[in-house]
Amino acid sequence: MDKIAVDAMGGDFAPLEIVLGAIEAVREYHIPVVLVGDEERIRDILKKHHEENNPLIEVHHASQVIEMGEHPGMAYRKKKDASVSVGARLVKNGECGALVAPGSTGAAVTAGLLGIGRIKGIERPAILTPIPNEKGGYTYLIDSGASAQPKVETYVQNALLGYIYAQKVAGIAHPKIGLLNIGEESVKGSPLVAEANQVLSSQKVIPFAGNAEGRDVMTGEFDVIVTDGFTGNVVLKFGEGAGKLVAALLKDAVMKGGLRAKLGGLLLKPALKKYMAKRLDYSEYGGAPLLGIRGALLICHGASKARAIKNAIRMARDVCSERLDEVVAETLSKMNLKEQE
Amino acid sequence: MDKIAVDAMGGDFAPLEIVLGAIEAVREYHIPVVLVGDEERIRDILKKHHEENNPLIEVHHASQVIEMGEHPGMAYRKKKDASVSVGARLVKNGECGALVAPGSTGAAVTAGLLGIGRIKGIERPAILTPIPNEKGGYTYLIDSGASAQPKVETYVQNALLGYIYAQKVAGIAHPKIGLLNIGEESVKGSPLVAEANQVLSSQKVIPFAGNAEGRDVMTGEFDVIVTDGFTGNVVLKFGEGAGKLVAALLKDAVMKGGLRAKLGGLLLKPALKKYMAKRLDYSEYGGAPLLGIRGALLICHGASKARAIKNAIRMARDVCSERLDEVVAETLSKMNLKEQE
Repeated sequence: MDKIAVDAMGGDFAPLEIVLGAIEAVREYHIPVVLVGDEERIRDILKKHHEENNPLIEVHHASQVIEMGEHPGMAYRKKKDASVSVGARLVKNGECGALVAPGSTGAAVTAGLLGIGRIKGIERPAILTPIPNEKGGYTYLIDSGASAQPKVETYVQNALLGYIYAQKVAGIAHPKIGLLNIGEESVKGSPLVAEANQVLSSQKVIPFAGNAEGRDVMTGEFDVIVTDGFTGNVVLKFGEGAGKLVAALLKDAVMKGGLRAKLGGLLLKPALKKYMAKRLDYSEYGGAPLLGIRGALLICHGASKARAIKNAIRMARDVCSERLDEVVAETLSKMNLKEQE
Repeated sequence: MDKIAVDAMGGDFAPLEIVLGAIEAVREYHIPVVLVGDEERIRDILKKHHEENNPLIEVHHASQVIEMGEHPGMAYRKKKDASVSVGARLVKNGECGALVAPGSTGAAVTAGLLGIGRIKGIERPAILTPIPNEKGGYTYLIDSGASAQPKVETYVQNALLGYIYAQKVAGIAHPKIGLLNIGEESVKGSPLVAEANQVLSSQKVIPFAGNAEGRDVMTGEFDVIVTDGFTGNVVLKFGEGAGKLVAALLKDAVMKGGLRAKLGGLLLKPALKKYMAKRLDYSEYGGAPLLGIRGALLICHGASKARAIKNAIRMARDVCSERLDEVVAETLSKMNLKEQE
């Protein structure tokens, strides 16, 4: 099994929660990991949890860290020994099959793009984010923030990447793929998206189900929703805000509704935690894969704790054991051949 | 007081709920209305509610209706006697101060653009939608769907329209205005939005607070969030979908959580209705104004019932009694003068 590199210094709770998440992944799934970062601090945590001699856990020293506030591109170029860059190089040179990167999304995308490198024929990598839907599953939103300057081909490539992920990793044999637009009619929307609709409609490799609207991101009507990184990122962060608003309003109702509401809230709380909060919790799946690069990279939320990291490591293993990058490259060349016919 | 034209044939519950909403607005706020549509059906409803002789209620016959599924532009051109078009003409010729239009957003925007006409200097009108925020108030998202082909000036004009609405109608003396982008740093995001940020930062008429992120739409950190109609519409519809998902998950938790959860849900229900559902219910404010046109137009949700229509009529009165269009025209000429200095 390929080893998974983990940036142990990324995110708000590094290195402790990252190392703990890696330990959980090793214990639960026997996935070999390479923890990248401050060797002394990492080994201290491993020792405290009696894992300093586990053959499935390696430590690879890196002396620098890219912080959340830094400009990703500039920091990447300046800090050659940053944990995320060192992790990317381990994937590039084949020592590891994937990198799990909590913390700055920008730094992770830059490390993927410059440190690991794109698949030939893919212009820009894209982030795929699982969004819980009404049907009890996930809808995959791609791109949710890697690239904010879309061309027509961007949408087509994102559709391809999402299609292959849904089929190979999520195990959906016939994924339904929609293009995010502002009306169901294909004439509506921005000229760029309308053109992407035409191109997607006229090809045969990716199954394309037409336009989707904002509300479809959560209905479960589609398995993959294709958009550009600007729109995808806005939607994702708006979703975060909506979640917080709902939590605040729920609390408000319990507090203001008198004794009856307080008792009701108390009784309902365990079920809300078990059925509602769990469904909306990103740590259930752990990370969002950056697709379109050689190898694999999982981007994790800056606030990731051990559970999210463990799940991201499992997801990273799935992406790299399915050789997603090779399947993408093959399918791309098939599409190009078709175009030349 | 200016009369408010109401498209009595628009939306899923026309004409009954629309006429009932108008009756409520007349009774509660004494706003004079002109009900536009099938005269016989409208008069029947008025009679049934003993309002056939109310001097504040006029009926203006229109023989056609633009349906939800029709292409807005084509339907507008074809159906000269559609209720929404006739209503727009009543505003254009000065008989009414504003039009309340439930139903097809596209038809309403077309009626505003072609039937009423733009304010001189405004390239495209924009829809402003109030979004409930965590601080207990509303954040105004503009444009939420009128125009999907933004230029740099689109963002600047939307900022101006939002600013004037927040100040004059919402009564916020010093509104905080943000530009929706994908990072707080002004260098991030699409080149178009980055340029809009620069233009907004360098002018002095509109108070500009910099970039906002998707989550800020609901934090209440900003009073106005400026975006293009594509992004705004996606966000709005995604919000609708998120609301439905939360409702489904809440129900799920109550059903699956056993007797304890069921009892909790029962006890909590009235407080949830009173404090949570009410805050998230669009019928509380009723409609979204189309700004940048001469006169005023309020777009209402297709599923609007009487309460939403009543509130939209009140909002329409506020927009037109503040002469928003005149203030916008004046401020625009001030901005142009400044540019020439």
